Amino acid sequence: MHIRVINPNTTQAMTDTIGTAATAVAAPGTRISATQPSSGPVSIESHFDEAVSVLGVIDEIRAGERDGVDAYVIACFGDPGLNAARELTRAPVIGIAEAAFHAATLISTRFSVVTTLPRTTIIAEHLLDSYGMASRCRRVRAADIPVLELEANPDLALERIIEECLKAKQEDGIGAIVLGCGGMADLTPQISAAVGLPIVEGVTAAVKLAEALVGLGLQTSKHGDLDFPPPKPFTGRFAEYSNLTPD
Amino acid sequence: MHIRVINPNTTQAMTDTIGTAATAVAAPGTRISATQPSSGPVSIESHFDEAVSVLGVIDEIRAGERDGVDAYVIACFGDPGLNAARELTRAPVIGIAEAAFHAATLISTRFSVVTTLPRTTIIAEHLLDSYGMASRCRRVRAADIPVLELEANPDLALERIIEECLKAKQEDGIGAIVLGCGGMADLTPQISAAVGLPIVEGVTAAVKLAEALVGLGLQTSKHGDLDFPPPKPFTGRFAEYSNLTPD
Amino acid sequence: MHIRVINPNTTQAMTDTIGTAATAVAAPGTRISATQPSSGPVSIESHFDEAVSVLGVIDEIRAGERDGVDAYVIACFGDPGLNAARELTRAPVIGIAEAAFHAATLISTRFSVVTTLPRTTIIAEHLLDSYGMASRCRRVRAADIPVLELEANPDLALERIIEECLKAKQEDGIGAIVLGCGGMADLTPQISAAVGLPIVEGVTAAVKLAEALVGLGLQTSKHGDLDFPPPKPFTGRFAEYSNLTPD
Amino acid sequence: MHIRVINPNTTQAMTDTIGTAATAVAAPGTRISATQPSSGPVSIESHFDEAVSVLGVIDEIRAGERDGVDAYVIACFGDPGLNAARELTRAPVIGIAEAAFHAATLISTRFSVVTTLPRTTIIAEHLLDSYGMASRCRRVRAADIPVLELEANPDLALERIIEECLKAKQEDGIGAIVLGCGGMADLTPQISAAVGLPIVEGVTAAVKLAEALVGLGLQTSKHGDLDFPPPKPFTGRFAEYSNLTPD
Amino acid sequence: MHIRVINPNTTQAMTDTIGTAATAVAAPGTRISATQPSSGPVSIESHFDEAVSVLGVIDEIRAGERDGVDAYVIACFGDPGLNAARELTRAPVIGIAEAAFHAATLISTRFSVVTTLPRTTIIAEHLLDSYGMASRCRRVRAADIPVLELEANPDLALERIIEECLKAKQEDGIGAIVLGCGGMADLTPQISAAVGLPIVEGVTAAVKLAEALVGLGLQTSKHGDLDFPPPKPFTGRFAEYSNLTPD
Amino acid sequence: MHIRVINPNTTQAMTDTIGTAATAVAAPGTRISATQPSSGPVSIESHFDEAVSVLGVIDEIRAGERDGVDAYVIACFGDPGLNAARELTRAPVIGIAEAAFHAATLISTRFSVVTTLPRTTIIAEHLLDSYGMASRCRRVRAADIPVLELEANPDLALERIIEECLKAKQEDGIGAIVLGCGGMADLTPQISAAVGLPIVEGVTAAVKLAEALVGLGLQTSKHGDLDFPPPKPFTGRFAEYSNLTPD
Repeated sequence: MHIRVINPNTTQAMTDTIGTAATAVAAPGTRISATQPSSGPVSIESHFDEAVSVLGVIDEIRAGERDGVDAYVIACFGDPGLNAARELTRAPVIGIAEAAFHAATLISTRFSVVTTLPRTTIIAEHLLDSYGMASRCRRVRAADIPVLELEANPDLALERIIEECLKAKQEDGIGAIVLGCGGMADLTPQISAAVGLPIVEGVTAAVKLAEALVGLGLQTSKHGDLDFPPPKPFTGRFAEYSNLTPD
Repeated sequence: MHIRVINPNTTQAMTDTIGTAATAVAAPGTRISATQPSSGPVSIESHFDEAVSVLGVIDEIRAGERDGVDAYVIACFGDPGLNAARELTRAPVIGIAEAAFHAATLISTRFSVVTTLPRTTIIAEHLLDSYGMASRCRRVRAADIPVLELEANPDLALERIIEECLKAKQEDGIGAIVLGCGGMADLTPQISAAVGLPIVEGVTAAVKLAEALVGLGLQTSKHGDLDFPPPKPFTGRFAEYSNLTPD
Repeated sequence: MHIRVINPNTTQAMTDTIGTAATAVAAPGTRISATQPSSGPVSIESHFDEAVSVLGVIDEIRAGERDGVDAYVIACFGDPGLNAARELTRAPVIGIAEAAFHAATLISTRFSVVTTLPRTTIIAEHLLDSYGMASRCRRVRAADIPVLELEANPDLALERIIEECLKAKQEDGIGAIVLGCGGMADLTPQISAAVGLPIVEGVTAAVKLAEALVGLGLQTSKHGDLDFPPPKPFTGRFAEYSNLTPD
Repeated sequence: MHIRVINPNTTQAMTDTIGTAATAVAAPGTRISATQPSSGPVSIESHFDEAVSVLGVIDEIRAGERDGVDAYVIACFGDPGLNAARELTRAPVIGIAEAAFHAATLISTRFSVVTTLPRTTIIAEHLLDSYGMASRCRRVRAADIPVLELEANPDLALERIIEECLKAKQEDGIGAIVLGCGGMADLTPQISAAVGLPIVEGVTAAVKLAEALVGLGLQTSKHGDLDFPPPKPFTGRFAEYSNLTPD
Repeated sequence: MHIRVINPNTTQAMTDTIGTAATAVAAPGTRISATQPSSGPVSIESHFDEAVSVLGVIDEIRAGERDGVDAYVIACFGDPGLNAARELTRAPVIGIAEAAFHAATLISTRFSVVTTLPRTTIIAEHLLDSYGMASRCRRVRAADIPVLELEANPDLALERIIEECLKAKQEDGIGAIVLGCGGMADLTPQISAAVGLPIVEGVTAAVKLAEALVGLGLQTSKHGDLDFPPPKPFTGRFAEYSNLTPD
Repeated sequence: MHIRVINPNTTQAMTDTIGTAATAVAAPGTRISATQPSSGPVSIESHFDEAVSVLGVIDEIRAGERDGVDAYVIACFGDPGLNAARELTRAPVIGIAEAAFHAATLISTRFSVVTTLPRTTIIAEHLLDSYGMASRCRRVRAADIPVLELEANPDLALERIIEECLKAKQEDGIGAIVLGCGGMADLTPQISAAVGLPIVEGVTAAVKLAEALVGLGLQTSKHGDLDFPPPKPFTGRFAEYSNLTPD
């Protein structure tokens, strides 16, 4: 089974972190390939960054189709372009936020989210609403660190995240914590050890859910609104998307 | 007051239709400029089309900022890139779906939506949920016509839309109907006359809401998650977005 | 265009304040007439005050119909009698709470409300629920000042409101604040300046939404539950309402 | 125990119907007094009728306070003026819609409502939402009969109501039916016999809930927003309400 | 009228407390019999305790059917086995949590719950959600006392409960408090006196609601999902439940 | 990895069906053991059946703990005793309804459920509400077949289920169908082939989700309300549960 883990931003170090974390949990028969777009933001910290990153996700899905990928993971906590990506393939596509929320509800009755910057908490809140999981989440918290600090100052970042997780444990009345950024994928063990709660991380959760769906023979429904997009002309720099047809 | 009406698709005929409809309702002091991206899909009929169109919306917002635009309307019923666009400007940005929903709730207790293709009804449903208006909408209906048929076969399209509107009037227990596509912007008078219900059309509604916000001196909040995006490098074909700073 | 701004309470000073604020934002072609009932409470600070004030609203709508008014604003934050008023006219009728909530959602993702007395916060909460905007509002706060203090001790009132707005800015994670009383209509500039957030005020917002609806040619739906009330006898002191028929 | 059943409309025949039904279920120690306002609509079939009827309800509560009433029932399915009435007394005040909804949820998992006119279904829907019971109600149906037809043509009215109840039984997947009008208070036995489902009627349900609350020594909370209204001047024809103080 | 109050745990002292409280509010014509299962947990403080207690509730319902009971009260705040119990009888069955929530909404607009252990707050939250009353409850609080402490150290328990109720009064913006454990049934007077808010206790509330339903002639619906269970074989230690048929 | 699949009813044939289906999707390293309680109902078709079955689930969890099981699946679509079971073990416990709902949302935007008897649809609806997935499910349908007919008349049962699935495909506007009974675990291939939609079956979905959680090292949270139950005496036939302590 070939799972393509797409880092929607263009920072190789984060793609490596994500790929390593994904590989660490993959089943024996699973091949993980972690990729990133050639074009896009170096990190995703705003609605704008996210919107641009969606094109990179689309390109990586199209590349994955050529490579015969069996399932995709979108490794940014905003799940950018999730439904668009699903339209472009029969393979399952899973976002790391949805994966983490699903997993957290299976091991606890209430959880909190700890993400990076305060301005991105709204993205997690919107996802919780649209996934119907708002009532399962007590609070979305921010450790107040820029995404790339996870690579630049890992120790300081880790310290701040643990600090916020401990606050969540003490104040929120929860049973688990969801890490709200793909760049935290390698920190789960240290955070778990320091916090003493189940820590749910989205990249790893999504890889296992992808394996699960492939194992079930379940593919993205091509009946209704996730069917392949109607082929049509695209103009200008997006002309390459004209008259797309499933391979 | 200068309102920029952005047609997120790249079909000039539709941009003209939208611009004409917008101008028809604009106040004396209001200048309408209807634009479309140089790059993108010729119509928006899928999550994928919508995702790509967001880049065009972003480019048009950036162009608008150079032109000193006072408010923006995103003239596609999926409100593509709404929050991303809001981050890029102090000017108000209004989506035609949200505008139509708001207006419909001011003149009726319940409404239905009539859109183009069945596969796009889910987009309207997602917006109704996220705007908190799901309980105000009885049903999202599709006239089952491709978007560009609105330009290619206007009479047939009009006939089908009226037919579906009449079904909504008879079956849904509603007081108003929302037209679910920017390309219907010129059809409101005929539909109203044929259906005998208030018909709410989003392009025109959004223009008037934009005038209202400008008249109130209300601008997009730059406190919190709609603040300008943190400047950063973008790579590859999106390098132009690197280190954006408000003019 | 003639917009009738109805102050549901019977305090002339507040009607003047409201009228002045409404006129200040009205478009060139718009005539504002601010009125108040001849009968009713001098301020609205309870469910009871509000219930009685509805009769005054009804009388002012009926007077407005004789005057050929094009749109109505109900200038009390509880939107008293909104649907009853809508039944009595083809003209659009807008409540200042709904107007402010709508406007706030167009410029921010989350807002808080600052109202007068703690006991009236429940009225705003009920409206947020029924308008589907509860999830957009972080918190309804009270400055703990009686409504008429806004006229009697404007400086002290302003100070307390600003104080509560600053708390909201610091604690609530919001992008905008909605002022929760028609009597605050003249305070927006000072509060904006002091708080540094977009301040949404309902009277002014409602006037602009009313202009928008009239400009769109949208009227209150007479199909279904907002149709004119079935004419019938009324007894006693309400005999005047017997067999009402639209002029 | 003295329970005052207030018919918010001014039709004596309906007051008699309601009083008879209330008395039929009252406990031995309970005294029922059924009253109606001296002023108001002869029936309540619109938001407007309801709004005017609230004043009558208020007057009847004030009269009840002078009579030392122990609990009140507001016997119109829109629960007009419920919270305003609660502010005016320490005694419990119960609306027949809320009473019927509560009772229906205690004997079934899902119910439907059968009311009089289509235009009043929205009132029941709004109450279901605000009481948090929308998910328990499958559908609000109208028998399409004017309220006073219940008195004028009881046989025809009964026939139509039974017809609609049978449709609900067959189509809605329910365990019980709520009758959506106080004027149906005497029809429960015939409807039950004809439909073969538990039929929940609000007037009788409210009387028993009122007995229950009095028996529990529970009174309307005077802590917070249901406290007595702040005394203040009322002008004009409502001057009588000035400076109200609890007796 | 014979009301069977079932204490789902097997602590006689608590059954006595509950029976005494139930008898104290029962109407003259009402006979209260308080029972407890012969098998089960001595207190209910976990999902597990609750799950086991359901069998005891079932056995007590079956015994009650033989005794010709007219209505049942399930006197544990988790309402264990409520729908299962309803299937086994035509008589009304009421849980003390649902009874308390219903009563609290009739005398206040917002309430808080004060229960025993922090780990049981989730049970109350789940019930509030499923009963549609989550928006009416500000907060579920725990006094942090094991259930049996209510019998073993009544004074200390009372002190802690009052302490938490006073916090709720000060912090939650509520009009009433619901006591979240059947074992608190005898403490209502002292708590009311100390807290100065209406205190709603579930055992007593349920008894009065049961009297109300019986007085209305309303029985558990046998149409649909609360009908008697389809008779079938049960194996092993539950063979006694084989082929149950209503007496 | 050892996954224990618990059939909460006591019909060996169904346990075999479930075990075979579970084994068919298990990963190479996974050992499946399918068990059933020695005591309980032969099928689960009512709230009562479900309530009794919970004890069997509890006993099977306790047995599993002695066997060193790594994860549990509760293979009845009502997810009986899910939270109670979670309290009794550190291992993940997954219900087949929740597993199927989760999986369905990963491959479609909307799904319908097809279950056995009409009276059990309410159980699925309650689960959809409590899992926050009600808005993702268009409709819960019943094929109107008793559970054991799945074993006794497999061909007829299959025919009826396919018939209902085709109705769902045509009428509900969905992308996938969830099978609403563990006894359907072996029918997925035939139903998929006949219906032409992704068919999500809970037993298989739960096995793969269990493998996923074990692979992630995620266990049921022992912090908060899913912690091991406080040890205490149980009386009578449940004395065996006294003073349980984690092995």
